[in-house]
Amino acid sequence: MVGGGQGAFIGAVHRMALRLDDRFELLAGVFSSQPERNRQSARELHVAPERCYADVAALIEGEAVREDAIEALIIVTPNHLHFDAALEGLKAGLHVVCEKPMTLTAAEAERLKAAAARSAGHFLLTHTYAGYPMIQHARELVAKGELGALRHVQVEYVQEWLSVAQNDDNRQAAWRTDPTKAGAAGCLGDIGVHAFQLAQFVTGQKVARVSASLSTAVAGRALDDSVQALLRFQGGASGMLWASQCAPGFENELTLRIVGEKASLSWAQEHPNELWLKPLDAPSQRLTRRSDAVSEAVARSIRLPGGHPEGYIESFANLYRAFADDVQGDGQAWLPGIEDGVDGMRFIEAAIASSAGDGVWTALDGDERKGGRNG
Amino acid sequence: MVGGGQGAFIGAVHRMALRLDDRFELLAGVFSSQPERNRQSARELHVAPERCYADVAALIEGEAVREDAIEALIIVTPNHLHFDAALEGLKAGLHVVCEKPMTLTAAEAERLKAAAARSAGHFLLTHTYAGYPMIQHARELVAKGELGALRHVQVEYVQEWLSVAQNDDNRQAAWRTDPTKAGAAGCLGDIGVHAFQLAQFVTGQKVARVSASLSTAVAGRALDDSVQALLRFQGGASGMLWASQCAPGFENELTLRIVGEKASLSWAQEHPNELWLKPLDAPSQRLTRRSDAVSEAVARSIRLPGGHPEGYIESFANLYRAFADDVQGDGQAWLPGIEDGVDGMRFIEAAIASSAGDGVWTALDGDERKGGRNG
Amino acid sequence: MVGGGQGAFIGAVHRMALRLDDRFELLAGVFSSQPERNRQSARELHVAPERCYADVAALIEGEAVREDAIEALIIVTPNHLHFDAALEGLKAGLHVVCEKPMTLTAAEAERLKAAAARSAGHFLLTHTYAGYPMIQHARELVAKGELGALRHVQVEYVQEWLSVAQNDDNRQAAWRTDPTKAGAAGCLGDIGVHAFQLAQFVTGQKVARVSASLSTAVAGRALDDSVQALLRFQGGASGMLWASQCAPGFENELTLRIVGEKASLSWAQEHPNELWLKPLDAPSQRLTRRSDAVSEAVARSIRLPGGHPEGYIESFANLYRAFADDVQGDGQAWLPGIEDGVDGMRFIEAAIASSAGDGVWTALDGDERKGGRNG
Amino acid sequence: MVGGGQGAFIGAVHRMALRLDDRFELLAGVFSSQPERNRQSARELHVAPERCYADVAALIEGEAVREDAIEALIIVTPNHLHFDAALEGLKAGLHVVCEKPMTLTAAEAERLKAAAARSAGHFLLTHTYAGYPMIQHARELVAKGELGALRHVQVEYVQEWLSVAQNDDNRQAAWRTDPTKAGAAGCLGDIGVHAFQLAQFVTGQKVARVSASLSTAVAGRALDDSVQALLRFQGGASGMLWASQCAPGFENELTLRIVGEKASLSWAQEHPNELWLKPLDAPSQRLTRRSDAVSEAVARSIRLPGGHPEGYIESFANLYRAFADDVQGDGQAWLPGIEDGVDGMRFIEAAIASSAGDGVWTALDGDERKGGRNG
Repeated sequence: MVGGGQGAFIGAVHRMALRLDDRFELLAGVFSSQPERNRQSARELHVAPERCYADVAALIEGEAVREDAIEALIIVTPNHLHFDAALEGLKAGLHVVCEKPMTLTAAEAERLKAAAARSAGHFLLTHTYAGYPMIQHARELVAKGELGALRHVQVEYVQEWLSVAQNDDNRQAAWRTDPTKAGAAGCLGDIGVHAFQLAQFVTGQKVARVSASLSTAVAGRALDDSVQALLRFQGGASGMLWASQCAPGFENELTLRIVGEKASLSWAQEHPNELWLKPLDAPSQRLTRRSDAVSEAVARSIRLPGGHPEGYIESFANLYRAFADDVQGDGQAWLPGIEDGVDGMRFIEAAIASSAGDGVWTALDGDERKGGRNG
Repeated sequence: MVGGGQGAFIGAVHRMALRLDDRFELLAGVFSSQPERNRQSARELHVAPERCYADVAALIEGEAVREDAIEALIIVTPNHLHFDAALEGLKAGLHVVCEKPMTLTAAEAERLKAAAARSAGHFLLTHTYAGYPMIQHARELVAKGELGALRHVQVEYVQEWLSVAQNDDNRQAAWRTDPTKAGAAGCLGDIGVHAFQLAQFVTGQKVARVSASLSTAVAGRALDDSVQALLRFQGGASGMLWASQCAPGFENELTLRIVGEKASLSWAQEHPNELWLKPLDAPSQRLTRRSDAVSEAVARSIRLPGGHPEGYIESFANLYRAFADDVQGDGQAWLPGIEDGVDGMRFIEAAIASSAGDGVWTALDGDERKGGRNG
Repeated sequence: MVGGGQGAFIGAVHRMALRLDDRFELLAGVFSSQPERNRQSARELHVAPERCYADVAALIEGEAVREDAIEALIIVTPNHLHFDAALEGLKAGLHVVCEKPMTLTAAEAERLKAAAARSAGHFLLTHTYAGYPMIQHARELVAKGELGALRHVQVEYVQEWLSVAQNDDNRQAAWRTDPTKAGAAGCLGDIGVHAFQLAQFVTGQKVARVSASLSTAVAGRALDDSVQALLRFQGGASGMLWASQCAPGFENELTLRIVGEKASLSWAQEHPNELWLKPLDAPSQRLTRRSDAVSEAVARSIRLPGGHPEGYIESFANLYRAFADDVQGDGQAWLPGIEDGVDGMRFIEAAIASSAGDGVWTALDGDERKGGRNG
Repeated sequence: MVGGGQGAFIGAVHRMALRLDDRFELLAGVFSSQPERNRQSARELHVAPERCYADVAALIEGEAVREDAIEALIIVTPNHLHFDAALEGLKAGLHVVCEKPMTLTAAEAERLKAAAARSAGHFLLTHTYAGYPMIQHARELVAKGELGALRHVQVEYVQEWLSVAQNDDNRQAAWRTDPTKAGAAGCLGDIGVHAFQLAQFVTGQKVARVSASLSTAVAGRALDDSVQALLRFQGGASGMLWASQCAPGFENELTLRIVGEKASLSWAQEHPNELWLKPLDAPSQRLTRRSDAVSEAVARSIRLPGGHPEGYIESFANLYRAFADDVQGDGQAWLPGIEDGVDGMRFIEAAIASSAGDGVWTALDGDERKGGRNG
């Protein structure tokens, strides 16, 4: 594990998730760039002192000579450190689990993609929400044509936790609003990219163009704290994306609504165990997380009978378990990976460019000619 | 009453609304352009045969000489007939109740505004949703600063009833998708303008600029059946507006969310008796329609104790009752009127222009210079 | 109208309900036992002074000789005055609309039943909630066997408004907690009987036996302010009934859940436009108030398209409109009437007797032998 | 671990729960009475073959001589095996984690209590729902007097999974409906006792008396599949308890509502991350699972920020983690233990006796004199 030392949020989540199914064991790490904090974190996590390394290079070198060497590298640092660590990991042939956004730029993302193509290591980008069974079921419903042609895709990810200027004590907030660590995107990169990935994941369609407006509500903040965008999907659907981290009263409201010609779907992350199917001229149905009501593939992401709530950790653990399966030869093509990372970075860059250009429709693949009337 | 003959939807609603409080009586009308249907409608509505007129001019002339002449004209025709009828009514000094959208063009709206300024008649534009007590309460909460400076305004109005190409039997659908009767805007003019008015009504702020994308999902339809737009309010808030009439499973989902620096509000028309107040870092509150929990002004729109649901008809009746009060000298400045109509037509025209211009930010007041970077 | 003078709650509701469809006109009344309040109420209600009577006898006598005499008597007084007024009305051949509970005792109810059998007048007991379309639809679903044999019936009616000892200013509260006016039952008679009627109405089954526990939470109150009871239906279903008027935070939470062998139903009065159908091993469905999704009979109680909320007043008006149809020969057998009143009074007396007897199972028809093991 | 072999449901849940926080390790077990299934289960669970024992006696004997002996015994068998295993474990000085209902009879429960008093081992009864942070917060709100004196306690636990006669393949269903394995109570013992424990846990009050009605809806079933009961708490509150396992459409609907003189609380297990506080004459509040909004004690049961759902496994893991703390000297007095088990068995026996006696109010402590008028 790289990052995730004392006080880190997402590192602790990764550890719970990997423990849940007994498929991973935490053996080594670079938990902090501060030596004492690094050592202390290792101690607390029952990692042997000699496997607590000063940096990623040392870790790879040190592990390479061990018989019980690590097989996978988990990267849970702030954004600016993702690229180098992932690249080194892939080059060393390790499997890599990496937090989003994958890199700081689309160019870096492309380089990582190339490295992954040359590596024996598998790559998992932890877009957590793809691990929810009802999201996977939604994806299958769309793929099977239950909605017909898609018309609208409305995705939102709204939080309150950056509603006021943070003090320096809040480590989570500090790096996320610091361009040198978070990159050029604030809210857009932290959660907007989750919303984007979720929309692509469930629709099975790529976003072709975006018209975006970034804004910063909190005085003195260097990066955007909200983004509002219109989207065009390659399949023709029109979409809207709203992400904000300065919205009082919204805890973690990631919601997705998909409108098709035959039916619509609605899902909200805060109540992840239900999915609404809204057929044309018929009663809406509350689909629940039941292994007897989904495909075998989706049922693998279900641990408990319906009515026994599963949550964020189980969703995360589903990614880890499926990644273990994937690595062991039981291919799990749905897992978020390099391609999601490249798309996410392109989306971030296109949204920033569009916003800078007064909302001009901007193609994600950089081909200007594809921008056009109403995207 | 002009329009509202047999089989009409909104005319029947107007009649229930005006009866509820015993402040209006239906005395005369032009219920249909088809003579037999006109006569038959009058009979069913207990309107005396001699007060069933062939057209508005005849009605005004016929009533003018009666001792028990009508005092108000209610216009519930398809859109293209609003302007002439309203203009004649105002010129005759009658009070006018008119359905939205007020006219076919902003230019007509301006002319009507001028006519209203010269007339002794009062003018009510039936933006129904302003009649809901919790909407009025929301408006007061914003005005009193309970939310602080506004950041985001998300408004949606989504329906399913035009999801497929309608057959000719559906009179409601037929004229709404016919440009000669509905005007240049389909969904945008039918319900988009409701969403727009509601957002302005509750925020107390005007929309300065819009970047819109209209689309038509149903093949063969001449007008838009959905619109997605980014908004900029004069007070600086950024907004999004989504209206669609081709979204399966959505019955009449008008929702409004307002995000301020101190708290957010959320309201959904399908559950109109509750309003969510979501303060920063504190539990969300479910405000209910209780006369002891709102101002005296809002309490006038409440008929029943909390927990006894009021609905669409009561909301409509609130407009009528307040209009009666207004006409009788008890001014009800909040009532939607000419100004709302002018703004609505400007919004429609700006949205159409923006969409035609590839989403370029377009000022509602026609002043091009106000369009600019990100609106 | 008898009762319903200035400041009265339910009288005003009746008047809105009867106006809504233009099938009734308020012509005469005894609005208060206080002469000045009586006269003043008549004036406000546009009732001619000479048709404002001192008591029911005078009203019946006075109207009898008029050409434009009233046809129906509406009784909205406190409970203790229901019986005499209804009896006089029926004897005079008038149609009678009466508030619940119908009388003070089951014996009175039986006498009224006998009088109704001899009268040309029709009788409507205003159990409001039977007027909701989704309740009527639920009743049809049960009758058609969509649920299979019924297993459980859970009904609740919970309010907060009598949570503390009321001061004398609250006229509504005062008589409801005064045994000389309300009768022997407090909460049980005021809302418990609504819950009871609703359960019988929707299931189409009579309650055979009850085991009840009444209690009084507010010190100094002479009557019960809550009741908890187990029920046995004649068809074998077991039920529970909870009514309370001293439950903080509950506005008017009347809810009904019916469990059958094939499916369950759930409905809540505060969201009356939806009904949940919960089939075995299949997604729950949100049925909404749509005239195209219910029988023709139920569709008559629907005024607006789905998604346009209807509420308490519309439900009430449905009773009035159907009563007008019934009186005019278009029989509406479902309307709550004398039989509901008799059953309600038997339930009240059985519940009081059971509670006094330590919860002994008590038959509603007074046949002791039917009480037995677990009812 | 005793029980929990291949195909078992709750055993797998226990294992996920104990792994989540890295405080327990599964080292030995008696996973099945069938030798091959026992061995196979051990293999799958990475338990050394020599630590896979034939029965509990062998396990205790075998482990006693090991240096790395187990410290705790986890009992996840059908009910009839709980008592012996728990007794042996306690006698051997082991910590014991036991599923509910604790034993088959209250007498056994008392014997276990005596054994626990003499043992150095700690005892955890896995009433899962006590592990939910919002339940713990509710308990503190009641204890701090935020609700005032309690008036009503409504608790329900309703499932559909035994709605039809099960076939023999369903191992979960088979033993639960077999009196020789489940004991004298079916639904009552399987989930009714959870509802009972939850009500006592949150109110901090013991149930003094019960008037119950058990029933069996599914033909051929030997035990009850539903129970409806009235309760009296020692503090005076009146309550109702409904449990059913034959209710179509109910997945795992455990709900608790507590009505106090100042406010009410409402919680539903299927949405465990929110708790409704309903004050008198004020807006209801949606309390969410936030560590900054609860006491330090409750915050220990929270793993993620608000809006990131936690569920059933996390709740279960909270019991395990707190039990580890408790065992290591950091007393966690709130943990469900022997006393809950004794109370639960008394409740089961009192409910059965009451139902057999036609619903007579029955004291839980066996003191007949305490039964009385309305309990």
